[in-house]
Amino acid sequence: MLRLLTLLGLMASLLIPGVSFAEDGYRMWLRYEPVADQSLQQQYRKSLQQLVINTDDATLAIAKQELQAGISGLTGQAIPHSRQVSEHGALLVGTPQSSQDIANLKLDLSALGPEGFRIVSADIAGKRATIVAANSNKGALYGSFHFLRLLQTEQSINSLEISSAPSVQHRVVNHWDNLNRLVERGYAGLSLWDWGTLPAYKDNPRYRDYARINASLGINGTVINNVNADARILTDQFLEKAAALADVFRPYGIKLYLSVKFNSPMLLDGFETADPLDADVQKWWQARVKKVYEYIPDFGGFLVKANSEGQPGPQDFNRNHADGANMLAEALEPFGGIVFWRAFVYAPEQGDRFREAYDEFMPLDGTFKDNVIVQIKNGPIDFQPREPFSPLFGSLEKTNIALELQVTQEYFGFSYHLAYQGPLFTEALNADTYAKGEGSTVGKILAGEVFDYKQTGMAAVINPGNSRNWTSHPFVQSSWYAFGRLAWDVNLTSAAIGEEWLRQTFNNDTGFIESMQEIMAISREAGVNYRMPLGLTHLYAQGHHYGPAPWHDKSGRADWTAYYYHQATKDGVGFDRTASGSNAIEQYHSPLDQMYAKPESTPEDILLWFHHLGWDYKMGSGRTLWHELVYKYDTGVAQVEKMQATWESVKDFVDTERYQRVKALLKVQLRDAKHWRDACISYFQSVNGLPLPKGSPKPAHELDYYKRMEKSLYLPDPWYPVPSGH
Amino acid sequence: MLRLLTLLGLMASLLIPGVSFAEDGYRMWLRYEPVADQSLQQQYRKSLQQLVINTDDATLAIAKQELQAGISGLTGQAIPHSRQVSEHGALLVGTPQSSQDIANLKLDLSALGPEGFRIVSADIAGKRATIVAANSNKGALYGSFHFLRLLQTEQSINSLEISSAPSVQHRVVNHWDNLNRLVERGYAGLSLWDWGTLPAYKDNPRYRDYARINASLGINGTVINNVNADARILTDQFLEKAAALADVFRPYGIKLYLSVKFNSPMLLDGFETADPLDADVQKWWQARVKKVYEYIPDFGGFLVKANSEGQPGPQDFNRNHADGANMLAEALEPFGGIVFWRAFVYAPEQGDRFREAYDEFMPLDGTFKDNVIVQIKNGPIDFQPREPFSPLFGSLEKTNIALELQVTQEYFGFSYHLAYQGPLFTEALNADTYAKGEGSTVGKILAGEVFDYKQTGMAAVINPGNSRNWTSHPFVQSSWYAFGRLAWDVNLTSAAIGEEWLRQTFNNDTGFIESMQEIMAISREAGVNYRMPLGLTHLYAQGHHYGPAPWHDKSGRADWTAYYYHQATKDGVGFDRTASGSNAIEQYHSPLDQMYAKPESTPEDILLWFHHLGWDYKMGSGRTLWHELVYKYDTGVAQVEKMQATWESVKDFVDTERYQRVKALLKVQLRDAKHWRDACISYFQSVNGLPLPKGSPKPAHELDYYKRMEKSLYLPDPWYPVPSGH
Repeated sequence: MLRLLTLLGLMASLLIPGVSFAEDGYRMWLRYEPVADQSLQQQYRKSLQQLVINTDDATLAIAKQELQAGISGLTGQAIPHSRQVSEHGALLVGTPQSSQDIANLKLDLSALGPEGFRIVSADIAGKRATIVAANSNKGALYGSFHFLRLLQTEQSINSLEISSAPSVQHRVVNHWDNLNRLVERGYAGLSLWDWGTLPAYKDNPRYRDYARINASLGINGTVINNVNADARILTDQFLEKAAALADVFRPYGIKLYLSVKFNSPMLLDGFETADPLDADVQKWWQARVKKVYEYIPDFGGFLVKANSEGQPGPQDFNRNHADGANMLAEALEPFGGIVFWRAFVYAPEQGDRFREAYDEFMPLDGTFKDNVIVQIKNGPIDFQPREPFSPLFGSLEKTNIALELQVTQEYFGFSYHLAYQGPLFTEALNADTYAKGEGSTVGKILAGEVFDYKQTGMAAVINPGNSRNWTSHPFVQSSWYAFGRLAWDVNLTSAAIGEEWLRQTFNNDTGFIESMQEIMAISREAGVNYRMPLGLTHLYAQGHHYGPAPWHDKSGRADWTAYYYHQATKDGVGFDRTASGSNAIEQYHSPLDQMYAKPESTPEDILLWFHHLGWDYKMGSGRTLWHELVYKYDTGVAQVEKMQATWESVKDFVDTERYQRVKALLKVQLRDAKHWRDACISYFQSVNGLPLPKGSPKPAHELDYYKRMEKSLYLPDPWYPVPSGH
Repeated sequence: MLRLLTLLGLMASLLIPGVSFAEDGYRMWLRYEPVADQSLQQQYRKSLQQLVINTDDATLAIAKQELQAGISGLTGQAIPHSRQVSEHGALLVGTPQSSQDIANLKLDLSALGPEGFRIVSADIAGKRATIVAANSNKGALYGSFHFLRLLQTEQSINSLEISSAPSVQHRVVNHWDNLNRLVERGYAGLSLWDWGTLPAYKDNPRYRDYARINASLGINGTVINNVNADARILTDQFLEKAAALADVFRPYGIKLYLSVKFNSPMLLDGFETADPLDADVQKWWQARVKKVYEYIPDFGGFLVKANSEGQPGPQDFNRNHADGANMLAEALEPFGGIVFWRAFVYAPEQGDRFREAYDEFMPLDGTFKDNVIVQIKNGPIDFQPREPFSPLFGSLEKTNIALELQVTQEYFGFSYHLAYQGPLFTEALNADTYAKGEGSTVGKILAGEVFDYKQTGMAAVINPGNSRNWTSHPFVQSSWYAFGRLAWDVNLTSAAIGEEWLRQTFNNDTGFIESMQEIMAISREAGVNYRMPLGLTHLYAQGHHYGPAPWHDKSGRADWTAYYYHQATKDGVGFDRTASGSNAIEQYHSPLDQMYAKPESTPEDILLWFHHLGWDYKMGSGRTLWHELVYKYDTGVAQVEKMQATWESVKDFVDTERYQRVKALLKVQLRDAKHWRDACISYFQSVNGLPLPKGSPKPAHELDYYKRMEKSLYLPDPWYPVPSGH
């Protein structure tokens, strides 16, 4: 299928002038369209005469298949396979173990670890060759995908000298997929996992292509079910199905993980307790884990959401997170499995939700087993368009950690809005914790350069469903891509990643790339601006998290209201987290705690996260806080209009299907951006009684209109009931 | 997109020997693959040198596009467009109004009505031509699709003389799609209607391709939302979205209809009543209907499920079905709209559910307005694998009627089982009601040949969702196809339709067709045999309707249990509907009522629908009823094994993707067929205490196992919660 589509794409381009291959987005960034640059095309053809792989290993068989399909698509020239180098223009792929040619080169592979790769140009027995070498077949597969990326982005492959190894050991995607195929916060159709046809139909092409997509980025783990877990995932009925998926993913180097419910022994087998210190409970988990490994011999481990938003956990039995995590870790340890234990917790008793993960986990630092990894969201609240970094980064010194990011756009307009999140992810990774002085960035901490962790990870909640293009909005693909590339190399820039993605997903035209880089650069900031600028946060309508409801002040708990977050009164706005407030800033290392203690030294884009300020507080721009706020809202709307104009300007460089789709979605996004702006400004005006700055347009409707629309504007998704009312 | 895929398919076949185009099923039966028969290929090329269409009408523009794409795909030769015949081998399409050439031919089009067509070979000004002529552009479009069908099924196009007009006026597909995109009984992903991106993204290629698929069969209406209706479909928010869909469907000759909730004035506007005789209620509907026509000027009308399974209706206000239907009909009448009013009713008071639709509707015959059509399911209960025909057919003489069929496999194993329902549909159409003596078949009645109806219709509940191949199981497409073809021509045979479908959907190889015809012929009967042979019915587990639960004897109402239907005791089995029982047989015309009065004259395949018989009742085969029952169950399982073997035998004639998918699904089906057989036999043995006939295999498990499995075997679908338990 892969090869065929590529060939057909090739033929279409070669044989029908002016006709571009219909592009529905299914191929993501693995399109292998013909290289447009003719001199590069010649170089590639000359350098790629022969593919040499000397093993029948399943992983290298995949590398072979991908390279043959990709190169024939890109160059229009088939690359025959051989077991040894016999011609100029050889592409040699493997390990010193599998290939005597590679062994003879005596390349230094010591820095690559088990998953890295080198790509070098060299002569082998007098023949010019390109070598993709690694310490493992998996490393060679990653190198092969990297090599294809060089071709797809039209880089010279003469004189290559590339060496690359991943920043973190665990590069894992998380699916919030329920067993009934609804995807929590997914917005891209039903779950990819068609449980009803598993295990029989494991040949479903989507499973293989899903694995290819992830492997192309170096992703090596997938948690296939929702963290709000269904205990039944551990029944034989579902393990048999999960095992079929694991079989498909295995040769791509992807381990399968499961989210489990902490009180599974109670739900599945009638236990009266799930106390992690109870010997029978421990035995139950040991037996179940053994069973899991019978189905899936290389099973990765568990992801656990415990004592969070109603999920059961060790605290239900007067134990702590470490007790719970360690009990599961002990059951998994004999088989090499690990536990990702989420730090996304906030206690039912009201404090400052910002503080809670830190306050709960810091006392436990050093008490978790070596095969436990505490998985921490980038910010202290919950995947907001902008958050300061979670102070657990840089503080949990003796506990393995993973960073959890969200690719799916729960807070970014679902799959209706364009929001490349590369800038958000790099903002989190580049945040300096000052844990060991300047330069102790979150990225460096994750890469093990600051503390001596046994293992670390990066995870992202992705949203692929049965939508044809996987993610519904074509640009959600770019955030998936950015996550994968950053998990491999925390030092990449969002601009470089965006360019890579554009070149592979669309084309290599310089003008197109330049125009589109602007969209990639501003789309996330636009989303911040038209929703919650200057450090405002969580002004969403409850539940659906799509539209605005800053007026929302009643709920089951205070921190599920918008008022809790913005605290807007006649006198001012913002959440005081300094010493006069919740003092959450004390959780940061110096000098951040001092910086955040004063509004003047707090970055303006997170200002209202830490300070409650008067509406007339003077901003760096010289504007009052109120005027600056309105200015930001106006800017957000203008940025969406800018994206529309840019998209229109590249029309001729994009296939009709994606052009029309994105154009229509930008129309939806502009409607919503204006709605957000107008609803929030109306509301804040109703609180502060202040006029708009000159030149700023009046909201289209009265505040009441937006309040009514809270329940009716927003968009049908099976995860939520259709809005009610007329 | 269409043209491109076709061209690519063509290129693949022409240029890469041995490689068949990857087939994911998206193209349904409109594949336009190159004609394999070389002499026919030559004939087609010679006869198709020029496409002559002399109008810019939107519907004929679609005919032009489809013919050009189809013919170039089939023949590998482009067919240039012209406004008049100027060469040998012209294909002339249009009406006497649009084309002087057609007018000059003075073809008799009087029998065609507004939608029929003629296809004839003739000379025009000395040039050999093929003419597709009709009284309307829509008729010409239908003729164009028919012509493409001739090519796709490899028939000679020399000396054509075809005349065709539809049997019924309204050929309508029904979607049971909810506004949150869940599809009731759909099993093929989320709703096609992506409400969140409408109206902005009406260029979604699926909408156009959906319209093409239906138009190719002559389907001229679509009800886009669930009969268990959400009142909010009539709000402006949704009307604006529906109007965008109507815009897409219009040039394909497809009218858009909506399912409405009878008490909408109460739900949407706080009315205290929805009494159809209340003047304010009437005014509300008139105003809403006016609004609907502002959005959709050619709106088709309403489909209503009233006083049925909890849906509101006129009886809630002490009015009858005619009062309710006529009130809506009056509002629609000024705009040309109609009301489909469903006869699927069964009163809350327990009687024989079989009788109820007849008992409720017969007294109202003649009281419905001319723009009301009563829509009647083929059988008296509910889309069971086999039902005798509903006695309303042949009895409602003075009320317009429509037949409602179910393509989606609610009772046929969802989208996991292979069940071509052509035989079921033709069984219903060919059933002789004897209303005006022998030959008064349901089909003839619908075609208006028995009673003098103003208008009639045929409807089918279809299941397309966002699954790539629309229907999930590739063979559900065949039932959609069969419905459309039969709605056009009630006299077609299921075998002929099956062959047409196979040739277009797979290929024209004679051996392949012969083998596959066997699958087409037995698959529905297999489904009857392994579930509920000899006139047993509704032995399903409650709610999901997938697996067996003949033991089920407790529910909110008796007719929601299985026991109600089979009445099995130690002494016998079956539902007595003769004079000694519910006497439902009196609803049939003579001689059926006498035939069904005695088991000896009742067809054995519906025997237990009408009779409660001893287990030792002697069947035509000489076996006892019990042995015959087991024999049928065994036969059902053997038939699935036969389908597996046949599918394996045609492996080389089918693309890999569909081959693997159907093979895997047949594995699931065999598992389920055995499960059905074993569960039912175990249960009946537990009732009658009888041993199995010699040679019949013992059920794999004890009865208790199957009882436990009722809640855990069956398959995750978002419409139902995941089964509970370990």
